[in-house]
Amino acid sequence: MFNTFGTRFRLTTFGESHGPCIGAVVDGCPSRMALSEDIIQKQLDRRRPGQSSLTTQRSEADRIVILSGVENGLTLGSPIGLMVENADKKPSDYGKIIEVPRPSHADFTYKVKYGILASSGGGRASARETVGRVAGGAIADKLLFDRFGVQIVAWVSSVATVDAYDLSCEMISRKEVDNNEIRCPDDKVAEKMIAAIERAAKRNDSVGGVITCVCRNVPAGWGEPVFGKTTALLAAAMLSIPASRGFEIGSGFAGTRTFGSQNNDMYVKKGKTLGTKTNRSGGIQGGITNGEPIVFRVAFKPTASIAMAQKSSNYRGKSVISMIKGRHDPCVLPRAVPIVEAMAALVLADVGLMAG
Amino acid sequence: MFNTFGTRFRLTTFGESHGPCIGAVVDGCPSRMALSEDIIQKQLDRRRPGQSSLTTQRSEADRIVILSGVENGLTLGSPIGLMVENADKKPSDYGKIIEVPRPSHADFTYKVKYGILASSGGGRASARETVGRVAGGAIADKLLFDRFGVQIVAWVSSVATVDAYDLSCEMISRKEVDNNEIRCPDDKVAEKMIAAIERAAKRNDSVGGVITCVCRNVPAGWGEPVFGKTTALLAAAMLSIPASRGFEIGSGFAGTRTFGSQNNDMYVKKGKTLGTKTNRSGGIQGGITNGEPIVFRVAFKPTASIAMAQKSSNYRGKSVISMIKGRHDPCVLPRAVPIVEAMAALVLADVGLMAG
Amino acid sequence: MFNTFGTRFRLTTFGESHGPCIGAVVDGCPSRMALSEDIIQKQLDRRRPGQSSLTTQRSEADRIVILSGVENGLTLGSPIGLMVENADKKPSDYGKIIEVPRPSHADFTYKVKYGILASSGGGRASARETVGRVAGGAIADKLLFDRFGVQIVAWVSSVATVDAYDLSCEMISRKEVDNNEIRCPDDKVAEKMIAAIERAAKRNDSVGGVITCVCRNVPAGWGEPVFGKTTALLAAAMLSIPASRGFEIGSGFAGTRTFGSQNNDMYVKKGKTLGTKTNRSGGIQGGITNGEPIVFRVAFKPTASIAMAQKSSNYRGKSVISMIKGRHDPCVLPRAVPIVEAMAALVLADVGLMAG
Amino acid sequence: MFNTFGTRFRLTTFGESHGPCIGAVVDGCPSRMALSEDIIQKQLDRRRPGQSSLTTQRSEADRIVILSGVENGLTLGSPIGLMVENADKKPSDYGKIIEVPRPSHADFTYKVKYGILASSGGGRASARETVGRVAGGAIADKLLFDRFGVQIVAWVSSVATVDAYDLSCEMISRKEVDNNEIRCPDDKVAEKMIAAIERAAKRNDSVGGVITCVCRNVPAGWGEPVFGKTTALLAAAMLSIPASRGFEIGSGFAGTRTFGSQNNDMYVKKGKTLGTKTNRSGGIQGGITNGEPIVFRVAFKPTASIAMAQKSSNYRGKSVISMIKGRHDPCVLPRAVPIVEAMAALVLADVGLMAG
Repeated sequence: MFNTFGTRFRLTTFGESHGPCIGAVVDGCPSRMALSEDIIQKQLDRRRPGQSSLTTQRSEADRIVILSGVENGLTLGSPIGLMVENADKKPSDYGKIIEVPRPSHADFTYKVKYGILASSGGGRASARETVGRVAGGAIADKLLFDRFGVQIVAWVSSVATVDAYDLSCEMISRKEVDNNEIRCPDDKVAEKMIAAIERAAKRNDSVGGVITCVCRNVPAGWGEPVFGKTTALLAAAMLSIPASRGFEIGSGFAGTRTFGSQNNDMYVKKGKTLGTKTNRSGGIQGGITNGEPIVFRVAFKPTASIAMAQKSSNYRGKSVISMIKGRHDPCVLPRAVPIVEAMAALVLADVGLMAG
Repeated sequence: MFNTFGTRFRLTTFGESHGPCIGAVVDGCPSRMALSEDIIQKQLDRRRPGQSSLTTQRSEADRIVILSGVENGLTLGSPIGLMVENADKKPSDYGKIIEVPRPSHADFTYKVKYGILASSGGGRASARETVGRVAGGAIADKLLFDRFGVQIVAWVSSVATVDAYDLSCEMISRKEVDNNEIRCPDDKVAEKMIAAIERAAKRNDSVGGVITCVCRNVPAGWGEPVFGKTTALLAAAMLSIPASRGFEIGSGFAGTRTFGSQNNDMYVKKGKTLGTKTNRSGGIQGGITNGEPIVFRVAFKPTASIAMAQKSSNYRGKSVISMIKGRHDPCVLPRAVPIVEAMAALVLADVGLMAG
Repeated sequence: MFNTFGTRFRLTTFGESHGPCIGAVVDGCPSRMALSEDIIQKQLDRRRPGQSSLTTQRSEADRIVILSGVENGLTLGSPIGLMVENADKKPSDYGKIIEVPRPSHADFTYKVKYGILASSGGGRASARETVGRVAGGAIADKLLFDRFGVQIVAWVSSVATVDAYDLSCEMISRKEVDNNEIRCPDDKVAEKMIAAIERAAKRNDSVGGVITCVCRNVPAGWGEPVFGKTTALLAAAMLSIPASRGFEIGSGFAGTRTFGSQNNDMYVKKGKTLGTKTNRSGGIQGGITNGEPIVFRVAFKPTASIAMAQKSSNYRGKSVISMIKGRHDPCVLPRAVPIVEAMAALVLADVGLMAG
Repeated sequence: MFNTFGTRFRLTTFGESHGPCIGAVVDGCPSRMALSEDIIQKQLDRRRPGQSSLTTQRSEADRIVILSGVENGLTLGSPIGLMVENADKKPSDYGKIIEVPRPSHADFTYKVKYGILASSGGGRASARETVGRVAGGAIADKLLFDRFGVQIVAWVSSVATVDAYDLSCEMISRKEVDNNEIRCPDDKVAEKMIAAIERAAKRNDSVGGVITCVCRNVPAGWGEPVFGKTTALLAAAMLSIPASRGFEIGSGFAGTRTFGSQNNDMYVKKGKTLGTKTNRSGGIQGGITNGEPIVFRVAFKPTASIAMAQKSSNYRGKSVISMIKGRHDPCVLPRAVPIVEAMAALVLADVGLMAG
């Protein structure tokens, strides 16, 4: 259950990491929108493993195929079926999982819930599940840009204790973000981040970090005021991403340490409507967009899979040394950037279509 | 739209802060559960304004009435209608809102979305909307405790820059939380928090803070692994609360600054099953509960309504001085404690019933 | 669960027939629509018992009260809370139900499902539950007429074996329908219907019948093509009404006995668009409205509650004579007319708002 | 939108009739159920065109492929991706549709709704869309049988004016149903049905008919009492099938012509619980199953696509002669049998899992 996300613009995903394919179905995309595989491929390539020395060396081409819903380069209004074949499977790496649940992984909880584990261990908890999100998100992203000019850009704003928080959100583009391997648009900070990751990797350890995302040109008036606040939908979207552990919008947790007089956003005339002088609200007030850029941050824990020896326990409760082999990212952040963008796009396409 | 929360255990709320009543409907509560108004009233009393010098002096009795779904003290399995009359309305206080949108409030976004504002200004964005949540949440809370022994306890863990982070979550009870006005179970820290609020209030300013919530005895195996992760549902629930700005679970944002080897939770034998030595996962792995206590934190911004003069703008874009009269809390945190508990209970009742 | 109907325009209902009230919440009604209690009251009065000698003599005033969502005669866009007090309760009439499940009633199935019965027996299976539908439907009806000029009119087209099938649907108005007690716009047939009901009532028996409903001026292009066909939503809406046993659209069951060449509707120019010469499709093709009037029929079984002696069984399986006392309609059809209209309005408001 | 059916056991379908494939995703199937492609294939083969002289000669193999959710013959609890390639596409047959909307087809309504038509004309309105339903339904069917012993059997009970209504529902098996080409378990009536179809086909005309479906061994207590009545869900499921025009349960429309004393079902002891002597309720009372067989009937109109000349109109309103070439069934009934069974299985799996 619950492999569907959204109400009006819906994404359903399926596929295990070591089965024949990862698939997705986008339902609710309006008809007559230009769409082709290369638009989706572009974001998938940013999510793909093996892009740099920082990420896992599973070298999957991850070619997207559109199975339905598009003809002659235009959407038909019918559901868009999407598929990416799983090329580079090595299930043998995962043999041990059957006996020992990997620490801070979903092996144990899946076993309790389903009484059975996919041979790959990860199953739907594998990061590979996010292929479907990025594919579906790319369609939402296209719709938002074509219809409303919405631009969604995410980047890595901290890795371990290396921060790039003083970046101005206003202008950063995906191109700038992709300037370096770590996807932090401040090249000097990026170097330090990369060094931190390499140090950890050398010790068979891993690091976490924070991704900042900005959504520009979102019209005012999107979202619902009570349980369906845009803020709530974004929080759910982000906390549904594997390894994410926190979400904050606008001034977030830091804002709780200030006074109301410091945290409030004053209204000013902007064109024919009102805007705010500052943007501590992060573009959303009372759950509804106010026309300012939506700005939020997502916390990602250090990769749970580490090759370092860990003193844990097998399923029978016997003390064992857990050492996770296989190919794993010492830091998921750079590859999580397009996933955060995809989930943000899915939320905004949903509330945008609902707003009429 | 979207005044309904949940899938299997559903809460629908209605009512403006200055209309005749606030109402709620709970759908999906199993039959033959003992339920009476006093169980609900108890949590409503903790949310009620006028409890102490720290909170607004609107002195509303907030008496809950059960309209349906319960007979002879037992639930029938049919929807439970709930109502609280709005006793102490003073709409005149809100006259000015028609011309000047209150900074960092939902007046402007509501106006854009609906083209009309409730006379109270706040309408459904008013904190009074949370009466329905607390009432519905109290029923979920009862269900969780009766069926599974689940205990949900929240408390104020920081106010402005005053922190009580080193509290151990293990044992704190609602009774201890209610020991002082600010609902921080560490009395010494509580004193400092109260002092901070009083200082701000004297200057017509306001403060924010963080609430920590722990859910104990939640069985392992609850929640769905992809978009319906328990983590995602909790994040949505918390970010749907007025004034909330952030959510983190387990080691959260701080955990992103550590190494995988420091952040991972090792398995150990606990009774007939496995538990974890540490609980940096906050009780949820891969979106599914693991049997450890669920621990999360919610950021609340400083109250937007302050009596201090603010240089803002009216709807026509003309520069004006905004001064919010009316009765407002200089700090929403103590009254938000039962709201956080209610939303947590609604999420857990939903995933718990879904888990079979 | 499932006391909510609709996706974009949603009705949630609650209340037992012998509790304090019947209530409803309408969510998703656009803002700034003129709405007052008398608009809703008008349809409730048509549903009310005690209107004529044909219906039960429970004389309930059924006064609607709007609890929220409307101010100064205009909707706010927030949920509209609705309530009707239960004035004339006589639970004592229902004492026997505790031991003997009424034949063809929901007593037995409720007992199996919930393990408990409301003291009135009927609980949510009581026809009184439809008060909330008619109230919510009246709001949908107003929205459809104000925005699109949609007119929904239902009438009794057969009672037992007395048929009025040759009526032309084109022009019948609610006023004409209300010309006689049985709500059949053909006065001569109406007389025969009334006679049939009175004959049955004298024998402590009951009769069923069929209601025809026409929805005029529905724009083409409403509804979804696969599982959300307007046809499917209407069928679900109608089969959710107590005592309904069948649904057919356009040429329906009779059409299955003709040839394709006789059943197909030919296109002709109508104004600037196409219409069809005949309307055997009943206004819907492939699940989507085609601009012709939507015409469907709903079968209602003879009232299950009859005062005649019936040889049935008590809960323990012992043979008993069941005699249903209390006040019951010998024929539910005239009072079901506004219920059918309400459910049709709820479906069309939902697909209409979804169509943008 | 709305290419998803169900709440707890959900089917999402995609694919155009002339695109690369038809696909489906089943979400919510419990883990550790034995499942293989041949179980699904069996029902697909019954839906397949070209089975007999009565059905279209598109000879598609329709081989099902399971893409996810199953490993080593057992379900994992994750979504089950399903795919059938479209082998025998002849889009050229459909060229004319661009100018002339086929009478009583969805061409016109799709054009109004989407402003674009799939090259095949039919798009998602094509009967080919039902491949996904039958595949998903086969999984629901397996679940129902394995867990509860539920048996679902449908058959053709009338074709044009040839009726087989006096068949007893009690014992008919799928095997008996498949004894002849028309899928009517009364061989003598079947011969007359086949003759009627052949007569119509010779004149380039088509016929409709009625399918009866019985669901045996459904436990009492399934379904929800108000909007989610099992009756309502079944009605929606059946009216979502292409070409269906009506639904009735138990005594249905005919029952409306009888008296309450004739239509009521008396309770009798059956084993340790109660059953009913007769089954005019069709196994459902107040929306909840009562343990008796569920019996309902679905009306299918004569195939709209006929090769006979029809005086219709093109999109510009100009009078034209419409002659539908391509390969079409003169009677959809025999192939609709597994579709009705599939939709019934999807509904029952959903309410069954929800019932706990």
